[in-house]
Amino acid sequence: MSLDSRSDFDRDRVPPKHDASWTLGFSREGSFAEPDAKASRHQEFDTRSMVIDEGDEARSIYLIIEGAVMLSKLLPDGRRQIIELLGPGDVFGITSTAVHDVCAETLSPVRVVVYDRRKVDETPALQQLVSERMRAQICHLHDHAVLLGRKSALERVATFLMRLVPGRGGVDCLGPGKANTAHVRVPLTRQEIADYLGLTLETVSRAFSQLKREGFLSYGRNDEVTITNVCRLCHVTGAH
Amino acid sequence: MSLDSRSDFDRDRVPPKHDASWTLGFSREGSFAEPDAKASRHQEFDTRSMVIDEGDEARSIYLIIEGAVMLSKLLPDGRRQIIELLGPGDVFGITSTAVHDVCAETLSPVRVVVYDRRKVDETPALQQLVSERMRAQICHLHDHAVLLGRKSALERVATFLMRLVPGRGGVDCLGPGKANTAHVRVPLTRQEIADYLGLTLETVSRAFSQLKREGFLSYGRNDEVTITNVCRLCHVTGAH
Repeated sequence: MSLDSRSDFDRDRVPPKHDASWTLGFSREGSFAEPDAKASRHQEFDTRSMVIDEGDEARSIYLIIEGAVMLSKLLPDGRRQIIELLGPGDVFGITSTAVHDVCAETLSPVRVVVYDRRKVDETPALQQLVSERMRAQICHLHDHAVLLGRKSALERVATFLMRLVPGRGGVDCLGPGKANTAHVRVPLTRQEIADYLGLTLETVSRAFSQLKREGFLSYGRNDEVTITNVCRLCHVTGAH
Repeated sequence: MSLDSRSDFDRDRVPPKHDASWTLGFSREGSFAEPDAKASRHQEFDTRSMVIDEGDEARSIYLIIEGAVMLSKLLPDGRRQIIELLGPGDVFGITSTAVHDVCAETLSPVRVVVYDRRKVDETPALQQLVSERMRAQICHLHDHAVLLGRKSALERVATFLMRLVPGRGGVDCLGPGKANTAHVRVPLTRQEIADYLGLTLETVSRAFSQLKREGFLSYGRNDEVTITNVCRLCHVTGAH
């Protein structure tokens, strides 16, 4: 990879804080109305805040009202895997033991509702909500296992970019409509994309360069990417 | 890889049916008592039966009472990823849409309780049980993402073998006790191990050969493997 290709898409910089126009596919554009529940409290976090750390006592479950959160796990020697990218309506803090199995860090300003873990089990409406989100996350984790275990580097990066396009790709794809382009913001550094996709930084850079060279995308300011033809990119994800 | 190393561990053969002495780490040795519930029915499946297929209408949730089940997903070109290995007490058939997102195949004779999906939502005891199992599966899927995204081939195979040793490895490890050896049965073909670990057949064979050569394990009859020193193998999983 030439040094020039790095400057094409400078993803080693942490994205700017408090960007009001932030929209992410996995944050479902906008905010989410929380269900009524006693024993809950609201909390706000800045971009790049650590909400929970791996090994913390697991007393709470968090419902995202606004913003984006990433979950990750570390191996003892420092290798990191980013497990999930979550947005409004998603929950985190789910574990089967007394401690959290992942670390949760914000990717944008985030507003959450924090529920006592025991209260969730005791409140049918909350249990229903958490169950529903767990089902969706299990399906996402299944898809991500296919990506990590069986997809090529180019397919992985294309799948990641498609994840940022609201309402496109997958069984519920809305179709191209009038415009088949999409403008997305990529809230992860290039190293984080690598840690999410099970790749090295260099491989991620090469895949982005190839996608740019072949006309799939172009770069805007900061962390903006324009996907020239969404359907064409979707056909590179391995899902067709 | 030499042809000889293939004969070391002939995993391309499907394990024998109805082996009463079958024990797997993920089947938690023995059977699981199901909760009382109306609108449920029992079903039995032989080894290597397809219980659900990807895309089937998702009307039921299955609770495993006895035996082992693997969940997998296919890409359109035939690449397969095995997502989960499940045993007694585990549930499958969980999806957030109207259709199943995975295929479920038995690895041994299996007995399940089949619940109507809507009944689960309406019955608090059942919802509690399914929620608890979903939490455990989410943690497992997090671990598997770390394996697929960040572990070496040797670490992956060692992690897989440790998964087959009941009560060892992880935060709840019971410790070596008097004997630090373990006799396990491997109910997957070598190709299936590859599809579970995101590797090729050849890489899996090489890793098994290396572990044998370095004295970590020896082969018994059929699908039996003796792990010579469980703690020593655990230290190759990347978790230490």
